[in-house]
Amino acid sequence: MARPKPISGFPEFLPSGRLVENRVLDILRQTFELHGYAPIETRAVEPLDQLSRKGEITKEVYVVRRLHEAEEGSGKGSAEDSLGLHFDLTVPFARYVLENAGHLQFPFRRYQIQKVWRGERPQEGRYREFTQADIDIVGRETLPDHCDVEAPLVMLAAFERIHHELGLPPVQIHVNNRKLAEGFYRGLGISDTLAVLQRVDKYDKVGPEAVTGMLVDELGLSGEQAKQCVSLAGICTADSSFADQVRQLGVRHPMLDEGIEALQAVIDAANQVAPGRVVADLKIARGLDYYTGTVYETMLVGYEKMGSVSSGGRYDALASDGKTTYPGVGISLGVTRLVAPFILKGKLSATRVTPSVVVIAVDSEETRHQAEAVASALRARRIPCEVSPDAAKFGKQIKYADRRGIPFVWFGGITGQIKDIRSGEQVDANANQWEPPVADIKVGVIADL
Amino acid sequence: MARPKPISGFPEFLPSGRLVENRVLDILRQTFELHGYAPIETRAVEPLDQLSRKGEITKEVYVVRRLHEAEEGSGKGSAEDSLGLHFDLTVPFARYVLENAGHLQFPFRRYQIQKVWRGERPQEGRYREFTQADIDIVGRETLPDHCDVEAPLVMLAAFERIHHELGLPPVQIHVNNRKLAEGFYRGLGISDTLAVLQRVDKYDKVGPEAVTGMLVDELGLSGEQAKQCVSLAGICTADSSFADQVRQLGVRHPMLDEGIEALQAVIDAANQVAPGRVVADLKIARGLDYYTGTVYETMLVGYEKMGSVSSGGRYDALASDGKTTYPGVGISLGVTRLVAPFILKGKLSATRVTPSVVVIAVDSEETRHQAEAVASALRARRIPCEVSPDAAKFGKQIKYADRRGIPFVWFGGITGQIKDIRSGEQVDANANQWEPPVADIKVGVIADL
Repeated sequence: MARPKPISGFPEFLPSGRLVENRVLDILRQTFELHGYAPIETRAVEPLDQLSRKGEITKEVYVVRRLHEAEEGSGKGSAEDSLGLHFDLTVPFARYVLENAGHLQFPFRRYQIQKVWRGERPQEGRYREFTQADIDIVGRETLPDHCDVEAPLVMLAAFERIHHELGLPPVQIHVNNRKLAEGFYRGLGISDTLAVLQRVDKYDKVGPEAVTGMLVDELGLSGEQAKQCVSLAGICTADSSFADQVRQLGVRHPMLDEGIEALQAVIDAANQVAPGRVVADLKIARGLDYYTGTVYETMLVGYEKMGSVSSGGRYDALASDGKTTYPGVGISLGVTRLVAPFILKGKLSATRVTPSVVVIAVDSEETRHQAEAVASALRARRIPCEVSPDAAKFGKQIKYADRRGIPFVWFGGITGQIKDIRSGEQVDANANQWEPPVADIKVGVIADL
Repeated sequence: MARPKPISGFPEFLPSGRLVENRVLDILRQTFELHGYAPIETRAVEPLDQLSRKGEITKEVYVVRRLHEAEEGSGKGSAEDSLGLHFDLTVPFARYVLENAGHLQFPFRRYQIQKVWRGERPQEGRYREFTQADIDIVGRETLPDHCDVEAPLVMLAAFERIHHELGLPPVQIHVNNRKLAEGFYRGLGISDTLAVLQRVDKYDKVGPEAVTGMLVDELGLSGEQAKQCVSLAGICTADSSFADQVRQLGVRHPMLDEGIEALQAVIDAANQVAPGRVVADLKIARGLDYYTGTVYETMLVGYEKMGSVSSGGRYDALASDGKTTYPGVGISLGVTRLVAPFILKGKLSATRVTPSVVVIAVDSEETRHQAEAVASALRARRIPCEVSPDAAKFGKQIKYADRRGIPFVWFGGITGQIKDIRSGEQVDANANQWEPPVADIKVGVIADL
């Protein structure tokens, strides 16, 4: 077999990169669990007709078929039997809620960390296979408004740890409320509010003048209407003062008031917990998605060009079986999108390429069992280690550790000596008592951004 | 949307089941890392021509195609561009080793825990999507024999924790060596040794007489040859005494001696660490797989009908690029295969359906921020908790906790009271100091086998 080549859009990491990614995943999972979110995992496939409902996304879906079946041609399998790989974790979660509603306790908090697949054209920061980490709170018929405050704060807590412990940049979560925008547009006498939202969604890419042009040319808004919509989109504040700025635009509508109040609640609560990290940003639209209230996007400070690394919002009907409606609010974090650009460029790496903290040196194959006994003693106290693969000269065994970034080498039996190969210091030690420095137990992350 | 139905062969768990599965996955990961295995993850897809090399497995592969592409028909994509979902983690790992050989340190220990997909007919214990946990040690050109001892002992260490901490049955690892069998067959003057192995592989299913019949009828062996092969397959010992039993059969061949010696080394080393858990079982063949030395299968004691839950062996050429050969030894544990039958029948469940240990009661929506402060204080000390979704009567809030199996309810602010709803005991507590019993912090597993 010739040397295989990577497949574009399907990123893979060397062990060092995977060790970094695992630190991120551990922080996410710990944070979600600390906040009472229960883990679930859904199958990778959904019926194709369920995946195709969302308009534009259809063409990005991967169809899955047994090779045997594919060779037989499409004669046998009907469309409703066809399966596709899920392209997000929201569609599968909505299906899971309906399927298992009788066995779940509502409000139901769940997190889900899984691969998703999209057949998009691969490009920087866009992958065909990537990991998402989602949290959602879903209610039966009703869901309290304070859930809209909770969801971004849980994600923020995870981002704060990722920033402080792993050295990634801090984030800023940008929040808006669909009701605020929709109420404002209605107050201006505009009926096709979704069409306006879709143009405003392009604000960051094309700028305010171009959006104004689209609103006039494509939607037939008056110059004054368009100007007002773009003015609204330009409002961005770190506190509740956005409300005054909106009211100064002179538009009135009950839904606008409702939206302002809901957004204020989120911003005020967030400012108490993490001042400056959550801002009201009235241009956040989240395009085609079916959000009905609060919407979120998250930028890495200094890396805004990467786009949003964590987005979500409120659905008044995350799922519905016709009789019962399940409102939900949630946020999805793009794990691959967040870490892959840094890992693949070598800007995030691990301090070693293995979990091992210690290599146990071997004198001779006849005494390998003594080295194994040392390893067992260390592992019994949760110290990751490995025994040298051969009884080479000690210099070579030290090199074995060094090449992997493993900081310690053990010589002798249970009563032996431990060498820190970084300092060269070598001291007597007992394998039933010796502990490495706490900072060495977990693999560290080196951020060189 | 009507209530969706499960898809046969794609098991999913309720949160309780997923919490159990996560405990198993945590034990596996911790054990692998304690032994110095580095984590990697490979993409879900491989080029179809790479997946089709393994003879019989071809028909079980799932082909993956972009919906857009699929609708255009097969005119465009050529066979070598086609992608399939991986059906195990060995083929992707071999490809990963070749692709990244220049960046890896050999011998390379890695673990990999991922979903795999097989288009087999779904039946009890067989799934179309399932999770595997693999460990492998791979060398460049050479790999020491003691790795054949290490691999099953690492997996055994994980199984022992799963048994003791979660209450699953203990395991017995059955070990054989391909060289022993092949040397024995050659000593009998048989040349097509693989054909014999494939028949012996059916020993457990059809019994010794039927195997003897197949060897005579299908392969043209003499009655004496067939009898000897079946006698060899019947040898199973908990210690090295299998060697004497083999030698009493009177067959001589250098490869046989080599195989006996290698198997003795594994059994002797395993007996020092975990007496009785590893046995020499000379009927273990591992059918069509390309193993060249030690082979392993693992049975849950008392549940042998489930078949092997963890199998593997030694490959003299796990991977090769024509210039360099990479020998490897590894074992794969079928996580879904191990836990799904118990979870889906309710025989393994979690003590609660959420990570939360505490529900913080809410007096009124006006004082929700006080409850949030209590939650923050508990989370700062790694105690998972959640704030009550509403300010209902305390009885209802206690019921909220009870229905989820959450053991504690907090009343008041930072200086408040904690109620253990199992005992009914309620005492004064400070949220900056109170700790739940250690046994309550992690979600427990209830095994009712």
